[in-house]
Amino acid sequence: MGLTVALDAMGGDFGPQVTVPAVVQALLHFPELKVTLFGDQSAITTQLTLLNQLNHPRITIVHSNSAIANDARPSQALRRSHGSSMRMALEAVSEGNADACVSAGNTGALMALSRYILKQLPGIDRPALVSAIPTAAATKTWILDLGANVSCDSDTLFQFAVMGAVLAEQWLSGKPRVALLNIGEEEIKGNDLVKRCAEMLSQCDDIDYIGYIEGDKLYSGLADVIVCDGFVGNVSLKTSEGVAHLFIDRIRQAVGTSKFKQILAKWLFSDLFDSLKQLNPDQYNGASLLGLRGIVVKSHGSADITAFTNAISEAVYEVERQIPTKISNRLEEVLLERHY
Amino acid sequence: MGLTVALDAMGGDFGPQVTVPAVVQALLHFPELKVTLFGDQSAITTQLTLLNQLNHPRITIVHSNSAIANDARPSQALRRSHGSSMRMALEAVSEGNADACVSAGNTGALMALSRYILKQLPGIDRPALVSAIPTAAATKTWILDLGANVSCDSDTLFQFAVMGAVLAEQWLSGKPRVALLNIGEEEIKGNDLVKRCAEMLSQCDDIDYIGYIEGDKLYSGLADVIVCDGFVGNVSLKTSEGVAHLFIDRIRQAVGTSKFKQILAKWLFSDLFDSLKQLNPDQYNGASLLGLRGIVVKSHGSADITAFTNAISEAVYEVERQIPTKISNRLEEVLLERHY
Repeated sequence: MGLTVALDAMGGDFGPQVTVPAVVQALLHFPELKVTLFGDQSAITTQLTLLNQLNHPRITIVHSNSAIANDARPSQALRRSHGSSMRMALEAVSEGNADACVSAGNTGALMALSRYILKQLPGIDRPALVSAIPTAAATKTWILDLGANVSCDSDTLFQFAVMGAVLAEQWLSGKPRVALLNIGEEEIKGNDLVKRCAEMLSQCDDIDYIGYIEGDKLYSGLADVIVCDGFVGNVSLKTSEGVAHLFIDRIRQAVGTSKFKQILAKWLFSDLFDSLKQLNPDQYNGASLLGLRGIVVKSHGSADITAFTNAISEAVYEVERQIPTKISNRLEEVLLERHY
Repeated sequence: MGLTVALDAMGGDFGPQVTVPAVVQALLHFPELKVTLFGDQSAITTQLTLLNQLNHPRITIVHSNSAIANDARPSQALRRSHGSSMRMALEAVSEGNADACVSAGNTGALMALSRYILKQLPGIDRPALVSAIPTAAATKTWILDLGANVSCDSDTLFQFAVMGAVLAEQWLSGKPRVALLNIGEEEIKGNDLVKRCAEMLSQCDDIDYIGYIEGDKLYSGLADVIVCDGFVGNVSLKTSEGVAHLFIDRIRQAVGTSKFKQILAKWLFSDLFDSLKQLNPDQYNGASLLGLRGIVVKSHGSADITAFTNAISEAVYEVERQIPTKISNRLEEVLLERHY
């Protein structure tokens, strides 16, 4: 059998220098995986030659003439997208030649092109960007939306909750605990948007809705899925990244360049450095665009080889579990339940 | 001369056990300061007796029969506020018997009561909760609103920018750099609210508006004032606190209970622990309610003695600099400039 990932080789801050070695890594992990690389043929073959993998039997290269700029507006990117590596990778999915698309390119463009080419699932107003974060409880928590939608209504938030629950339950043994991000835990807190969505969620038997959760509990592991609008989710996740980098920088500065201090620090705190690595946003990578008729995984633009490999793994994982079909089925059940 | 702070001794998770020792600390720092403690007379005198400060010449106790519950709704709190320690402290300010009010009580109630008793300054639609956070650049950045207003219009955000700039410039030598929190730095990013406010700010000569800033730059020191609506600000700040506590906990766990490791860690990383302390949200404390005809400082409910002392210091600082008058004057200038 096997499964095929269509990869935008040109996306991200480093392009083929990161995407190509990551593909080689991923192919080692997944013996069933095939990858089609879309991008500048010569840049890709240069990287493959360096890695001595020019004739890898599970890599196909499809040349593209252009790449979408990281700072292009979504509308602009859409108009000028013909023949770009990102668009060609998405078209491969829509035409059934690939099972998923992975890109580290411009988020707004990827969102716009995905909606245009793959279309939404029935019952979904807007796709959402979701990612899993590490928690103090050594579990994962999925947060959505992370910036695909700057303003949402309560129906959209409700759909996010359903989609997040479907994704999370693939990893969990029980039913995912779903919470709404709010500025207080009491029922009266928050804006009308979250209040209305809270009402919808508490009436839905299909979802284990546990109520509001505050920002300081984001990493607590108390919820498996946290739902918010894209503005709040984006600010919240980026703020976390900022704080994490601040801590990591201060620790690096303190250890400094002294070899003696470095060795002593490692001996004293080997567990700590492992556990801090988990909290480093560069390490967990691969946000999914949920709600489309196809699988699209967005990598950080600044992802390194390990991080980009994680994004490819996320795509493989979602293909194996047929996430879009599961979302579609669940949504139908939930909507039926709500209407009858 | 001297200045007087009216203190809600009953507010917060620990009441007089924290507020009373913090007052004694603050009085040591500020020889000109007088404090009026509002709350249960016997609980307050018990604490003062323990500290051997029962007859402190600069402490006055005013007995109050009730305290506002931490979980009371603002509307409920308002109705049942007569004779409560929080309300009496605010009344002392409105009647000219005190220069500022400090409370660690229910934020919503403090906001509602402050608006009801002190009223807003002319030209201010809604007061904002502001706090300073530490940055990587070893400066401070003021963020507002932190949760007093769950939904704002662009006029309100603009007023927040003016108020934040007035507060920040008391600490800085130059004009504060003001930024709007957004989900991208490009002009096209964000929702209508921030776009409209961005336009207003870029036309205002009185404000050094530097554009959009993203969540990951919150702690960068690139802006002196960061403006956002109360929902986003609250989630963002609380998320930071969550991440910071996660890091601090992991470091504590790694050092563990071994005395040897503790001593070695301190010797190796004394700077680190000092610098992490600055990032600990329990250490920087004292959010101000700006835009009122009086000074109101809100402490974390969970503040310890040092943190609550910081909140009192913040009140003293704002009294010395006459912040409400300065906001009022600046707003008049800015509005004049906008209209003519």
